Amino acid sequence: MRIALAQLNPTIGALSKNKENIKEYFKRAAANNADLVVFTELSLSGYPPKDLLGYNSFLDQEREIIVKELLPLTADPGPAMLIGTAHRQDKRLYNGALLLENDRIKSIHLKTLLPYFDVFDEARYFTRYTDKKIEMLGDMPTAITICEDIWNDMEYFSDPLYDIDPLQTLFAQGARLLLNLSASPYHLGKHGLREDMLPFLAQKYNSAIIYLNQVGGNDDLVFDGSSLVYNNRGELIYRAAGFEEELFFVNTEDLYKPAKKIIPPDNDDIGTTMRVLSFGLKDYAAKTGFEKTVLGLSGGVDSAVTAALAVEALGPDNVLGLMMPSPYSSLHSVVDAVALAKNLGIEHRVIEIDQPFNSFISLLNEGKGPFIDLAEENLQARIRGNILMHIANREKFLPLVAGNKSELAVGYCTLYGDMAGGLAVIADLSKMRVYELANYFNSIYDREIIPQNTINKAPSAELRPGQKDRDSLPPYHILDPILEMHVEKNLSAAEIAGKGYEIETVEQVIHMVRQSEFKRYQAAPGLRITPRAFGPGWRMPIARGYE
Amino acid sequence: MRIALAQLNPTIGALSKNKENIKEYFKRAAANNADLVVFTELSLSGYPPKDLLGYNSFLDQEREIIVKELLPLTADPGPAMLIGTAHRQDKRLYNGALLLENDRIKSIHLKTLLPYFDVFDEARYFTRYTDKKIEMLGDMPTAITICEDIWNDMEYFSDPLYDIDPLQTLFAQGARLLLNLSASPYHLGKHGLREDMLPFLAQKYNSAIIYLNQVGGNDDLVFDGSSLVYNNRGELIYRAAGFEEELFFVNTEDLYKPAKKIIPPDNDDIGTTMRVLSFGLKDYAAKTGFEKTVLGLSGGVDSAVTAALAVEALGPDNVLGLMMPSPYSSLHSVVDAVALAKNLGIEHRVIEIDQPFNSFISLLNEGKGPFIDLAEENLQARIRGNILMHIANREKFLPLVAGNKSELAVGYCTLYGDMAGGLAVIADLSKMRVYELANYFNSIYDREIIPQNTINKAPSAELRPGQKDRDSLPPYHILDPILEMHVEKNLSAAEIAGKGYEIETVEQVIHMVRQSEFKRYQAAPGLRITPRAFGPGWRMPIARGYE
Repeated sequence: MRIALAQLNPTIGALSKNKENIKEYFKRAAANNADLVVFTELSLSGYPPKDLLGYNSFLDQEREIIVKELLPLTADPGPAMLIGTAHRQDKRLYNGALLLENDRIKSIHLKTLLPYFDVFDEARYFTRYTDKKIEMLGDMPTAITICEDIWNDMEYFSDPLYDIDPLQTLFAQGARLLLNLSASPYHLGKHGLREDMLPFLAQKYNSAIIYLNQVGGNDDLVFDGSSLVYNNRGELIYRAAGFEEELFFVNTEDLYKPAKKIIPPDNDDIGTTMRVLSFGLKDYAAKTGFEKTVLGLSGGVDSAVTAALAVEALGPDNVLGLMMPSPYSSLHSVVDAVALAKNLGIEHRVIEIDQPFNSFISLLNEGKGPFIDLAEENLQARIRGNILMHIANREKFLPLVAGNKSELAVGYCTLYGDMAGGLAVIADLSKMRVYELANYFNSIYDREIIPQNTINKAPSAELRPGQKDRDSLPPYHILDPILEMHVEKNLSAAEIAGKGYEIETVEQVIHMVRQSEFKRYQAAPGLRITPRAFGPGWRMPIARGYE
Repeated sequence: MRIALAQLNPTIGALSKNKENIKEYFKRAAANNADLVVFTELSLSGYPPKDLLGYNSFLDQEREIIVKELLPLTADPGPAMLIGTAHRQDKRLYNGALLLENDRIKSIHLKTLLPYFDVFDEARYFTRYTDKKIEMLGDMPTAITICEDIWNDMEYFSDPLYDIDPLQTLFAQGARLLLNLSASPYHLGKHGLREDMLPFLAQKYNSAIIYLNQVGGNDDLVFDGSSLVYNNRGELIYRAAGFEEELFFVNTEDLYKPAKKIIPPDNDDIGTTMRVLSFGLKDYAAKTGFEKTVLGLSGGVDSAVTAALAVEALGPDNVLGLMMPSPYSSLHSVVDAVALAKNLGIEHRVIEIDQPFNSFISLLNEGKGPFIDLAEENLQARIRGNILMHIANREKFLPLVAGNKSELAVGYCTLYGDMAGGLAVIADLSKMRVYELANYFNSIYDREIIPQNTINKAPSAELRPGQKDRDSLPPYHILDPILEMHVEKNLSAAEIAGKGYEIETVEQVIHMVRQSEFKRYQAAPGLRITPRAFGPGWRMPIARGYE
């Protein structure tokens, strides 16, 4: 049997557009003699459809497309289609897959394990379905599963999230192929995890595995594709492309043969981070209808790396850099920013903010000052935010936020100022990782991209004379690990101090994290790269006790 | 048996502070001869604790307070304590209540039904517990339940959310008292619903009911208290105060006697809305450490009502109004705003934005213009946002957002402009309801509070000459019902048109709702008043198809 796997990039909610793409790939698969064409989890709606699932009209339309437009495609001579879709049954909604064959719905496979941690809210929408049955695909008894269904092996995970493992049920019925329709967003370490757990399952059950993953950037989440095929020995026999659509084929008779060649496991590195972020930006721009982006260039490393990612994503002609020096900007800030713009080959404009700043000051300080207080620091940042948004609004640019995760965590950023924009590209990268990415950019080109002075100089917001980040924050090599332990690993101050950090420093950092919740509540969507990003996966009260 | 019920206002996460309050009320109850003192759902952490529950250190601390500080209070001569708390058991976390008696944990009661719709995320944190047992409180077999546990009666609800009803189990064991520890946030119609369903349950099971609810404003959610006691005939024999803490007592022997007097059912009206919003604002300010608020006064009805609510919440001395006229402001805008400030007795400042506006224009338009385009409209709003934030930052005011739900729904508002602030007080009130509230304010005082001209004039953003809302939007008496049907009742364009609205208008409105998702993503927290507010209970993709 010849199975075609369609690793597609749906636009959330765009049922007609996604349907056209599905039909297009189905036809290509048919022309390539596929017996069955498989699509990803919730492939018509795209994943995650979120509260669109609360609209019956949306579910009706999805169903109608499947029944009236896709099902007929499977009429003899086929091929058959296995498609992920929301499915209503007995007044409940399920996350499932329909097997369409010979113009009829041959079988229905519903998801058992519904993730509702981190960014996932599936229990909000779907009901758990436990009565799993295997399906014959050709002569292959197959366990058809949806994403999370395969992620609860009681041996592999020391602390499984769910009380049941649907694979036990399915393999007890004699499955020889595990087919998984996924929409699994990328985070650091996920490639390594996938390519470690999947061969474990193959070997444990002596079963082949086809793991088909969605690709695409959907708001904060980047789905990397990178679909995988294992033989029953747990040898990786195919890995699909990352970050692009692909149609690939598996002949089931190959699934029980030794691998022809060894494909080395894929481990994430800083290059993966670059690809995730540039792809996430590119796809967000495409899906929100922007061709061009604009961002402020401060001469610092955050905006430099964000600009480099934007160029990677959209090309130099589609990136505009704004230098917006204030009276407190250092001389090198514009020099470094101009050097960056030249290195990247992007347009830049220098717009000094002295004039509006002085105008506000004379209006607000009653002829006195400037007072050089926090309010005036914020004011400078907000004037820059206004200019960025003005140009973005007038010239139809997607405005980018260049803030990193470290500053977002401790609130070292200004609401409506440097936090202003449509997408925060590096919001989930710690400052140390921003440096790593800056150096990586310089290493992959044969020339300097990020100016060395930008990398070397002490980080500064330049909102008052001589200001440096280190005046307000612990050094980043101390701050970042504390933040990672507190934000991503949920450790307390005492637990972090137990790992060799000064308790006063740790408590100061955690205090800053708590105090800045109100800023994050209003932050732009940021591309997720760690297992715990701020955004939809971080749900914290604002008005809360500080102890 | 004499049961004391403590309707308290915890601060989320403030375990020590909440503990002190619990101890204080416990002592008062003991001094009033209580045999048992009952606290609300998750009363030590406050509800909803959200992702604080992901910190083991937080759960450890909560447990330690209960075991080391609260449990000893119950040593002979008591009284006993029933306290809502997160509870770890068999590696899972439950939402439960501990019955503490004679210095030991007498029994544990865990929640069965975990809401995970709208603003609720309980399945994210807790495991469902189904093995419910009744508890003898004195001679009263009692069904101890947590909040949602009582909201799934299969007769009362035509479409119950869950597949089981824990009350069936508990009453099959002979319960004669239903004791419910709640943290149930207010929304329009909830009083009527509560006071309809609870007597239904009392009569169905011939059981008395004590319904104890949390009070307090926690970010977007307002918990109204209004705890209730019913006898076994379903007669309301006590209703606790709304919007404040209260300790009240129930003698169980009274629960099976006829009511001494009839307490009429409480139905929400516009007065309830006023109390919810002013209380929500007051408590948010208190819990985030602000004494004073500042807001822009445009002369329009939204800012007028917001200011009136702020005065209601914090008193006139703690509210500052800013008039920030632009070249396009009408003459009456400042006149009406000043009249409002005088009616309310609040301080006001007039700050003309011409100077910074012209300064930006000369910087950005290269000597030309103004062009009077959308970018310049946004710029004016953002200059006002800057001024609001500058004064708030410098003088430690809580900046308020005055936008209503209608404009937030269709995106008729400016990110970082009129959307800037710490709390959006009327963000869940449609424009029509804002007018209703304006008229209500004028009716409850013996004089004009909201200037009649503010109520009478055609709504306008005044961002270009002669601009009126009706140039861009359908009239509000058409727009608001369409929005309510689409946003709160999840109806599609076709379904709404079927109710007598022009399909073109409906589609235009729904299109605007979709297109403005990116603005709402970055909106300030807004006080919830309807069953479906924007904010944590509205989870929509930004980058999505528009069909």
